[in-house]
Amino acid sequence: MATNTKSPVVDIHTHVYPPSYISLLKSRSEIPYVRSFPPSPSLRLVILPAEDTESTSRGRPVGAEYYDISKKIEFMDTHSIDISVISLANPWLDWVPSSEAAQAAQSINDEVNTECGKYPGRLFAFATLPLSGGKEVIVKEIQRLKSLKYIRGVILGTTGLGKGLDDPELLPIFEALQENKLPIFLHPHYGLPGSVWGERANDYGHVLPLALGFPLETTIAVTRMILAGVFEKVTELEMILAHSGGTLPFLAGRIESCIEHDAHLKAEGKLGKERKTVWDVLKKNIYLDAVIYSEVGLKAAIQASGQYRVMFGTDHPFFPPLEGEGQKWASVETNYVAIKAALGGGSEEEKGALGRNAVRVLNLEV
Amino acid sequence: MATNTKSPVVDIHTHVYPPSYISLLKSRSEIPYVRSFPPSPSLRLVILPAEDTESTSRGRPVGAEYYDISKKIEFMDTHSIDISVISLANPWLDWVPSSEAAQAAQSINDEVNTECGKYPGRLFAFATLPLSGGKEVIVKEIQRLKSLKYIRGVILGTTGLGKGLDDPELLPIFEALQENKLPIFLHPHYGLPGSVWGERANDYGHVLPLALGFPLETTIAVTRMILAGVFEKVTELEMILAHSGGTLPFLAGRIESCIEHDAHLKAEGKLGKERKTVWDVLKKNIYLDAVIYSEVGLKAAIQASGQYRVMFGTDHPFFPPLEGEGQKWASVETNYVAIKAALGGGSEEEKGALGRNAVRVLNLEV
Repeated sequence: MATNTKSPVVDIHTHVYPPSYISLLKSRSEIPYVRSFPPSPSLRLVILPAEDTESTSRGRPVGAEYYDISKKIEFMDTHSIDISVISLANPWLDWVPSSEAAQAAQSINDEVNTECGKYPGRLFAFATLPLSGGKEVIVKEIQRLKSLKYIRGVILGTTGLGKGLDDPELLPIFEALQENKLPIFLHPHYGLPGSVWGERANDYGHVLPLALGFPLETTIAVTRMILAGVFEKVTELEMILAHSGGTLPFLAGRIESCIEHDAHLKAEGKLGKERKTVWDVLKKNIYLDAVIYSEVGLKAAIQASGQYRVMFGTDHPFFPPLEGEGQKWASVETNYVAIKAALGGGSEEEKGALGRNAVRVLNLEV
Repeated sequence: MATNTKSPVVDIHTHVYPPSYISLLKSRSEIPYVRSFPPSPSLRLVILPAEDTESTSRGRPVGAEYYDISKKIEFMDTHSIDISVISLANPWLDWVPSSEAAQAAQSINDEVNTECGKYPGRLFAFATLPLSGGKEVIVKEIQRLKSLKYIRGVILGTTGLGKGLDDPELLPIFEALQENKLPIFLHPHYGLPGSVWGERANDYGHVLPLALGFPLETTIAVTRMILAGVFEKVTELEMILAHSGGTLPFLAGRIESCIEHDAHLKAEGKLGKERKTVWDVLKKNIYLDAVIYSEVGLKAAIQASGQYRVMFGTDHPFFPPLEGEGQKWASVETNYVAIKAALGGGSEEEKGALGRNAVRVLNLEV
């Protein structure tokens, strides 16, 4: 059903490295770090262990699109994006010494909020938590976020306090996020142990850790949360999963079958009627971005979680233009095309996925 | 389009432990092994490291359905399955000493072939390769399989000769399979390193390694084959992927995007027009079973690979009846329901997925 109502396009998966974060990374010599490799004067960003090698493909060039917010606006204008909900890119502040965590998170979140204010109505943000600072510091920062006008949630990796997201020590943090109505944007960084890629992994560039390690990490993290009963304890917790949930939509049926058939869970009395199934969680607590690069994957995401729970994203500034491309990035167009194919060009459902769902879920002022 | 033509139901994912294999496992004290744990006289099968613990859920009970072929026929009759293509269950002969590999494979394959002959027209089989015996032994067994009336392919794990399926040393073996028109049924066993499941993994029984480890292992293995160019070198190689491809259908778009954007692959000249994309391989070399336990996953599998490339399976004797179930197993019914929902009850497409595709692809006499 097509209408002519103006409907915004909102990008919920788009990263920034504010200047203060780039400074932090420049001061480091281990991953994550930013440096030049003489004789070239260009800065390169190295964030994954697999990238930290002598090969020519070490890391990626750090251009202005990484830290200059005006470049984000240019990118948005080129791709007809009305609003971006920006987030610090991985690995966030996971590596910051405990004593510096509170200050680092405050200055990053303040800076990101200030940058949003430079383009009122165009930018909102997910904040970053001072994970290494301990529970009290983290909860305090969550409460402080209320004072930041453009913050609409938090971005979170999969390590939590060091033991993963099924760690019961995280429950007060999840409760604070629930209470403050701040959804978690769950994003991968650590991938899988390098041994799974085999001896020839370097021949394949970064494909295996990026294409498989990232989504599988997300899937494992959220499945562990489900098995730990997090969504039965913090019932209104909202999670937006990067990359359309890793592969949760595809594997939800298998996970459910394995749960229902598990002798240990049965013996422990964990299979009662009060159990929230994976499908329950997908339709009640979980939202999915639409960064999956195919109609096949996107349709599964929509069917698993519901058409009102899927939201457009770009992963900018990653997946930059291919050689010979015009101004528009293939990575962005692929996701636009998938949404149109899955939901129908001009339909209300398409408008939902392109922006209205994000406006509603993240309470964006348009 | 419904017709009244008689159309068989074929189960292509159904395992056996022939008596000689049970004997081999009984002689062992490390996984994989079969033994009783006094005071109970019942035999238990332990095949995964995570199962090898003192807990009450150690392994699984080995009933007659594991080794008595008449129980397979009973199961088939109960679930309206006309034909089963049986395969030795994991971990096959991966662990057999090199000098014993040839003999072990021969006797297992002969025994399985003989069992098929006891129920003519009801049973066919995937053979097991003597992987630890070295290339010549393996190729010799592949050539010998022609003499076994009911063999229609081989089941294969993800380790190959010890370095994974992207090992160039495997090419002569893939070529021998291609030449003898024997498809590979690719099946997981090793999962992922235990560290990814976290400290609380034991609280979740076997769910994480079975629900996520297995399909992710399959996905990684076949993606490594694609990146190594196996399907450009052995162009007619046919692979049937267990569990609907692990998660290859869902992630194919992301894998393609990561390949196209990879600086190393570009520098190496690997992104030329002659490259077979993941989608090309999915529609030319790959078939998928329908063991995915949801309409969401099955639709993605069908859309990725094509409706004529998806084939019903049960994973019998695993996922046994739940308490309170009747004679029919929930795990089987879930996959029947998914096929009906995805393709339409009574449609030609449903008949294809239920059996006709398998009859065509595996050249079964009905």
